[in-house]
Amino acid sequence: MVVLKILEIVGTIAFAVSGAFVAIKARLDLFGVLFIGCITAVGGGIVRDLLIGATPPAIFSRAYILFVALGASALVFLLAYIHRKDFDKIQKKVEYVNTFFDAVGLAAFTVMGTEVAFVNGIHENAFLSIALGMLTGVGGGIFRDVLTDTTPYIFKKHVYALASIGGAVVYYFIRYNVEKAWIPSLIAGVLIVTIRMLAAHFRWSLPKVHLDEDDKQ
Amino acid sequence: MVVLKILEIVGTIAFAVSGAFVAIKARLDLFGVLFIGCITAVGGGIVRDLLIGATPPAIFSRAYILFVALGASALVFLLAYIHRKDFDKIQKKVEYVNTFFDAVGLAAFTVMGTEVAFVNGIHENAFLSIALGMLTGVGGGIFRDVLTDTTPYIFKKHVYALASIGGAVVYYFIRYNVEKAWIPSLIAGVLIVTIRMLAAHFRWSLPKVHLDEDDKQ
Amino acid sequence: MVVLKILEIVGTIAFAVSGAFVAIKARLDLFGVLFIGCITAVGGGIVRDLLIGATPPAIFSRAYILFVALGASALVFLLAYIHRKDFDKIQKKVEYVNTFFDAVGLAAFTVMGTEVAFVNGIHENAFLSIALGMLTGVGGGIFRDVLTDTTPYIFKKHVYALASIGGAVVYYFIRYNVEKAWIPSLIAGVLIVTIRMLAAHFRWSLPKVHLDEDDKQ
Repeated sequence: MVVLKILEIVGTIAFAVSGAFVAIKARLDLFGVLFIGCITAVGGGIVRDLLIGATPPAIFSRAYILFVALGASALVFLLAYIHRKDFDKIQKKVEYVNTFFDAVGLAAFTVMGTEVAFVNGIHENAFLSIALGMLTGVGGGIFRDVLTDTTPYIFKKHVYALASIGGAVVYYFIRYNVEKAWIPSLIAGVLIVTIRMLAAHFRWSLPKVHLDEDDKQ
Repeated sequence: MVVLKILEIVGTIAFAVSGAFVAIKARLDLFGVLFIGCITAVGGGIVRDLLIGATPPAIFSRAYILFVALGASALVFLLAYIHRKDFDKIQKKVEYVNTFFDAVGLAAFTVMGTEVAFVNGIHENAFLSIALGMLTGVGGGIFRDVLTDTTPYIFKKHVYALASIGGAVVYYFIRYNVEKAWIPSLIAGVLIVTIRMLAAHFRWSLPKVHLDEDDKQ
Repeated sequence: MVVLKILEIVGTIAFAVSGAFVAIKARLDLFGVLFIGCITAVGGGIVRDLLIGATPPAIFSRAYILFVALGASALVFLLAYIHRKDFDKIQKKVEYVNTFFDAVGLAAFTVMGTEVAFVNGIHENAFLSIALGMLTGVGGGIFRDVLTDTTPYIFKKHVYALASIGGAVVYYFIRYNVEKAWIPSLIAGVLIVTIRMLAAHFRWSLPKVHLDEDDKQ
């Protein structure tokens, strides 16, 4: 589907942008920023492919995706370098806009990851199929955070992984009964973007054990 | 073996409980606590399966193990949430009891991991077989600590990985000469639990380079 | 090639030494130091083998490499333990010498990693081949730093990963047109060692976004 390919590129850019910002804040050099930007964009797909034994991972035959991620990361680096005195302002502006594109990316990656189970004929295993969708969606962000030595964002705030799981479940059960992939793609995709945007706007958070006073942000 | 299945469930619960406590202390939200609890329980087996190319990893066909881990993690979260003012006390009590079950888990996982080498007919490679046993035993704990941004516990204190390696070596050499798997399982299992309980009780530690005064705890 | 085998052993020792020092500074115990020393030496090759589905990874059939890494790590531990009061001095001396051997290791591992693509007949994919070379070279160091809870060195300083990528690119394009592997091995190897030594001597660094005054080291 052409639409999904476009959304994948949108998601790749959004993920690379988020990765590049985290890397700059972690004081990494140009190589570090490019590497983290790329792994944020493609890491989820690599984990998914390793789990189902599809080696070498698909990304290695689709270098254009990596070039998109490289370009987006390089642009963020350039922007941050030029405006380093107003970095916080720049970051706030970009991340505000990026929340939406990131949600689109999460939707596209989750849908494509779940579809991989159907393409490979392992969709009888509902649990595996949904896990593949979720890992494709959030795996890159885990790489980003582990490699920059921070506790993964998805374990801490907002309804991020949950939106991905919800979308993967919906995609799975519709796709199981419907021949055409675009129908569940549309429904699950809209669901994920909606949940994410609502969660970001209303600052939804999952319950948490507040161990001390300081902890009540 | 039914006994091993029961011990595996005991170990799954113990590992999930330890993961959930670490996650709560790292200030993760409910999703983070459930995710870390589960990956602590099943992460070792996933690494083992990836290393021998058994994809998708066995856990994805054994969802009940994951539900056990999910349930145990959720219970810890609930308990910690209700008693958050006495969290330290609760944790101490639970972890005291959990040391024993954790040792049982380490024993069950190590034994089962080493046995995987025999089941897959790659047991001519002693080094690989023992590594599989050890990684199944301690791999989940490494995931737990890396994902919560702490230096892995197994590199810092007590005779944890060493108990696993010792058990794997003993299992390997007996199993190599004995047809029945239950004999080496029993011997290696008792050995691992014994070493771990003694190490915890007498606070055994491996030598360490103390770089400064502060460091002598 | 005998020369490459010797260089691999040199590199294994150098990588294990760097891993052991990082582990000691992270306050790990003897097991931690040995484990980090070994994973620094063999981690890159394991990632490479997992990515191309060559399971179990080659290292498990080449235990002597692991024994070399174990021995080197144990020696560093012993040295640091005896001279713990002069640890900083010792480390500076050893690391000064080790920079050269580490560069040799990076060269040997990068060359061998890229050659794996040719041996496995997947060298039509230039991007994959170069990635395998780079990951074999720098992957162990990433493991070392993630497991000791520090931001990976290769993202922060000096022209480390870039030297590896440069060498892998040169190796790939010569090897693609030349039958004999020793010619590109020699050229790429010398190139990597030269870049690394120049970068270390002249303190070359890639551009970086300096976010605040403190940050201008």
